[in-house]
Amino acid sequence: MLNFDPAGLERILREQLNRRGVNAESIHHVVTALLETSLRGVDSHGITLFPHYCRAVDAGRINKNPKLTILKRHPSTALLEADHAFGHHAGSVAIEVAMQLANQTGIGVVSVKNSTHFGAAAYFGLQASRKGYIAFSFTNADSLVKAFGSDRVFFGTNPICFTVPMKNEEPLCLDMATSQVSWNKVKLHRMKKESIPSDWGFGADGKPTTDPEAVKSLNPIGQYKGYGLGMMVEILCSLLAGGPFALGLIPMFTRIEEKRSISHFFMVLDIRRFRSLGSFLNDLEIMVQQARSLSTLEGTMGVMIPGDPEKRVFRERFLRGIPIDEWVYKDFLSISEDFSKALKP
Amino acid sequence: MLNFDPAGLERILREQLNRRGVNAESIHHVVTALLETSLRGVDSHGITLFPHYCRAVDAGRINKNPKLTILKRHPSTALLEADHAFGHHAGSVAIEVAMQLANQTGIGVVSVKNSTHFGAAAYFGLQASRKGYIAFSFTNADSLVKAFGSDRVFFGTNPICFTVPMKNEEPLCLDMATSQVSWNKVKLHRMKKESIPSDWGFGADGKPTTDPEAVKSLNPIGQYKGYGLGMMVEILCSLLAGGPFALGLIPMFTRIEEKRSISHFFMVLDIRRFRSLGSFLNDLEIMVQQARSLSTLEGTMGVMIPGDPEKRVFRERFLRGIPIDEWVYKDFLSISEDFSKALKP
Repeated sequence: MLNFDPAGLERILREQLNRRGVNAESIHHVVTALLETSLRGVDSHGITLFPHYCRAVDAGRINKNPKLTILKRHPSTALLEADHAFGHHAGSVAIEVAMQLANQTGIGVVSVKNSTHFGAAAYFGLQASRKGYIAFSFTNADSLVKAFGSDRVFFGTNPICFTVPMKNEEPLCLDMATSQVSWNKVKLHRMKKESIPSDWGFGADGKPTTDPEAVKSLNPIGQYKGYGLGMMVEILCSLLAGGPFALGLIPMFTRIEEKRSISHFFMVLDIRRFRSLGSFLNDLEIMVQQARSLSTLEGTMGVMIPGDPEKRVFRERFLRGIPIDEWVYKDFLSISEDFSKALKP
Repeated sequence: MLNFDPAGLERILREQLNRRGVNAESIHHVVTALLETSLRGVDSHGITLFPHYCRAVDAGRINKNPKLTILKRHPSTALLEADHAFGHHAGSVAIEVAMQLANQTGIGVVSVKNSTHFGAAAYFGLQASRKGYIAFSFTNADSLVKAFGSDRVFFGTNPICFTVPMKNEEPLCLDMATSQVSWNKVKLHRMKKESIPSDWGFGADGKPTTDPEAVKSLNPIGQYKGYGLGMMVEILCSLLAGGPFALGLIPMFTRIEEKRSISHFFMVLDIRRFRSLGSFLNDLEIMVQQARSLSTLEGTMGVMIPGDPEKRVFRERFLRGIPIDEWVYKDFLSISEDFSKALKP
């Protein structure tokens, strides 16, 4: 297995974006987000995406020097025009504004329009929750999930990300697609030529399939419930921001020269408006301890808290590096031979 | 099948609460909420619960004359002490305060502590969305859902309710337990002595069962995802309000003389802070029309929008009355023989 050394990789990632004329703030957020996400083990939204992002910059989809502008600002809300910036950058500006609003009134909501793919939603929520806030981060995404009652796709995997500060620990972090699995998991099984469980996706006829090559749509969690949650995220993102929605969204990996105008939604809540942060954190610690010490179901790893798997992987990868598949490594080399220098010996 | 006439039933419901010395505002909200919920077809949270509520008033769990007090108020947030009022009453006060806050700052969040069962979450969200706001209504509930990775229950069915105004229609209304099905559905199959699908619940060993009598815990939607969403709702409700949580919550149908101190969370968002209400409603109408006209999957009723099934049932029941099972009717008679007068001929 190949492994990237995080420090060496970081230098080359920065260099590649710098060479393309990407502004310093975007570079900071893209590189930090991708490395953090990969170190947390979320490979689908980590460094794997870097070669794609470079191609999207080269094709003109992602704006190298965007002018981020707050179009509307009220005591607790703001609308941010992202000017097709890297989503990682736009989202970071938005969560920062949301925290400022929450400082003033107790809660801040920022809607973002004309953005691009923002990577892992957790990157933004964690920024706020490390500072003591509860945060929500949503985005709309490619139409890949089957509409309940139809044989066709409609909404994207529209993720829900909810983060909460914890005592002496990285924040609790629920970051989940509203589909049973992500499209990436299906792709991985295609690559490995392995069959998939029958509840992951559907074929062209809208019926369950175990053949990853046949999958045309993903299965929403809890049937109509996941479809409804996907709609909730779509409404909070694109309908509030006034961006394109559902089937109107340009897919991530095709028509790469076209701008996607993705919409995001961020909300930040100041716990101290309701009770002292200390008593909240104490109660959360008690609840988490109770959950973690429930009797374990045979054949499972026991009860975890959202974010626990990522905390474990982080410790491991921080020491041993970020493992990458052969085909991902080749994709990196297609961008620059320099990436070979970031491999761990 | 027995049918209650809504108008006749309403009179007797009011009378029964009045006779018990329940205050006028509580009576208004309990009766309106239960009738509306039953007319919308959500039998598990409608009038069926009325005899139980009478017993809870008689036992002293529900406070007949509560003093609802705003303990903390900031520009966008409030903490409401419900003094063990009917949850329907406390929730209505809370959503009203949330709308006032949203009028001032664009968003309002109200946390409610020391409340009781509030019935269907939709009752509160609909109040706000009929007035043009996006609303969220959450509550914690009895520990009935299996913790992912354990054989034991931990969180309740902790519902997510999301409502959005629509043009020329009742609001879009997603009101869902974070478990695959509600406990009530399992109980119904017990009554009918019918087996259940294997993804509804688990036996004492934490393994799936098709025998409703053997079910000891419910299945969260999307496995760890529904467990995570249940935790999200628990944190927003009890941890923010400082109320009892998870296994610490007294069950609904036992120890009826004890106060439960349920916690709720309401959030109201003013769409007009982001874009004109008209353009939002137009886009939503387009999206909804696109979804409703997707090709139908064979053997299904086609694509619906959250709340569509309830809108259909409402029209039907408004004309024909509210159907009730024989055992529910008997429960009503155990409270008062008067209920026989509310039956449709």
